[in-house]
Amino acid sequence: MTLETVATNRSHGGTQGVYRHASTATCTPMEFSVFVPDHAPGTHLPVVWYLSGLTCTQANVTEKGEFRAACAEHGLIFVAPDTSPRGDGVPDDPEGAYDFGLGAGFYLDATRAPFDRHYRMKTYLEDELPGVIAKHFPADMARQSIMGHSMGGHGALTFGLRNPGRFRAVSAFSPIVAPSQVPWGEKAFSGYLGDDRTAWGEHDACAMIEAGARVDEILVDQGTADGFLAEQLKPELLADACAKAGIDLTLRMQEGYDHSYFFISSFMADHLAWHAKRLKA
Amino acid sequence: MTLETVATNRSHGGTQGVYRHASTATCTPMEFSVFVPDHAPGTHLPVVWYLSGLTCTQANVTEKGEFRAACAEHGLIFVAPDTSPRGDGVPDDPEGAYDFGLGAGFYLDATRAPFDRHYRMKTYLEDELPGVIAKHFPADMARQSIMGHSMGGHGALTFGLRNPGRFRAVSAFSPIVAPSQVPWGEKAFSGYLGDDRTAWGEHDACAMIEAGARVDEILVDQGTADGFLAEQLKPELLADACAKAGIDLTLRMQEGYDHSYFFISSFMADHLAWHAKRLKA
Repeated sequence: MTLETVATNRSHGGTQGVYRHASTATCTPMEFSVFVPDHAPGTHLPVVWYLSGLTCTQANVTEKGEFRAACAEHGLIFVAPDTSPRGDGVPDDPEGAYDFGLGAGFYLDATRAPFDRHYRMKTYLEDELPGVIAKHFPADMARQSIMGHSMGGHGALTFGLRNPGRFRAVSAFSPIVAPSQVPWGEKAFSGYLGDDRTAWGEHDACAMIEAGARVDEILVDQGTADGFLAEQLKPELLADACAKAGIDLTLRMQEGYDHSYFFISSFMADHLAWHAKRLKA
Repeated sequence: MTLETVATNRSHGGTQGVYRHASTATCTPMEFSVFVPDHAPGTHLPVVWYLSGLTCTQANVTEKGEFRAACAEHGLIFVAPDTSPRGDGVPDDPEGAYDFGLGAGFYLDATRAPFDRHYRMKTYLEDELPGVIAKHFPADMARQSIMGHSMGGHGALTFGLRNPGRFRAVSAFSPIVAPSQVPWGEKAFSGYLGDDRTAWGEHDACAMIEAGARVDEILVDQGTADGFLAEQLKPELLADACAKAGIDLTLRMQEGYDHSYFFISSFMADHLAWHAKRLKA
């Protein structure tokens, strides 16, 4: 398990790094970024996972996310993976669309050819990358939390619901909460999983909650000027599911904010403070 | 004086905009970004000018600068211009190098052909753009300050020294302090101003101070791991000039930081707090 350092930069009283390794899950090289605040020798810090949205690599949040000041303040490691496998032989959307294939792995293991060979982001992120982080960084893997944006909000919610004992906090920015019911999810799930909708429910936060999956609480920020709000995001479906399930959802509709990093960065420090409180409880 | 709105995004409790106008100084379209925090109707806010470094447009600091939270907290408008004229007919470096021509205007008015027609960033930023800001934004032009990075640090220092009554605070990240004495400046000044070095001194912070220009105080942050430190930046020359002139220079050597926005963003909030204190005094 060799880890290649692509770049490191000192920032906000810590080290922002970009790393590359050969993934056994995706059978490709994978890049991710990690911020580690300065810390006393021998100490281990809680880990916040950030899953990015459609079209993104690790670079978007690493450059625009404004997370480092808060991570340094609270003593949190921040891990930002890529959103799909990439490289030679990795199939893409047949028409090169932004919402399937490269940059659009949807945080699941594909079962349909030709995507089933490389598109295994669930196994990569649930089973493989945590081991890499534990081995190479001063990470306290008993204290993890997860957040994400849009498709990555979908990832954070579904990973959190599937692993309630692993993640002490789950939050999202403008998440896809019910992919089975919206165009982005219908296209992705058809392509990666096939047309049998019973398999879709395992990767659909609202369906998972209806089927009994539970976390104690969820924090969601959603901009009211988000162009994807009505067609793709539908936070009211998550609100309904959480209300019925007794999950304590804090859904904050942020007036005038859109779907961009100008929105995410505005509330990143809030989310990290909320995570820190739960990671250190 | 028509102002075209390229984009606006709500962010950090304010509005981040990108705007375009036809500049009479450069005879080209010019783009700039402005962040305006929410404010009571009818109030006018102090203005912080940020001048960017080589290769940058307004977009670099707008996306990576992490200035909005602090500007919202202190009630500051943040203006980020481009670093050169661009567009049809604007001459570039003959070999397309990054350190001359496009993205490298050096905040002066060129006197040598063919650059003298469009490369007029001094007139653009000292005379023209302030009028645009005053007309179209809720700006209190009696309370302005200026900062910049690298080539933009050179711009901030020279504009501040030339206009001590206009700018209530002057600061810089890793500035070029003595362009006449370093390769970047020698190339740019030769190309834009010609070989007569007497003209160079009007755009060289250290030379201006030696010739009698004064500001009360200057704040500079400089990374010790900056690859340009020894050859291009030479902050010790500014320290010497300020010491002789009685200018109160705070020069902070930041251990391990480099020349990137990972560095700038780490100390942006510090600089803005320092500016705010002086803008509101």
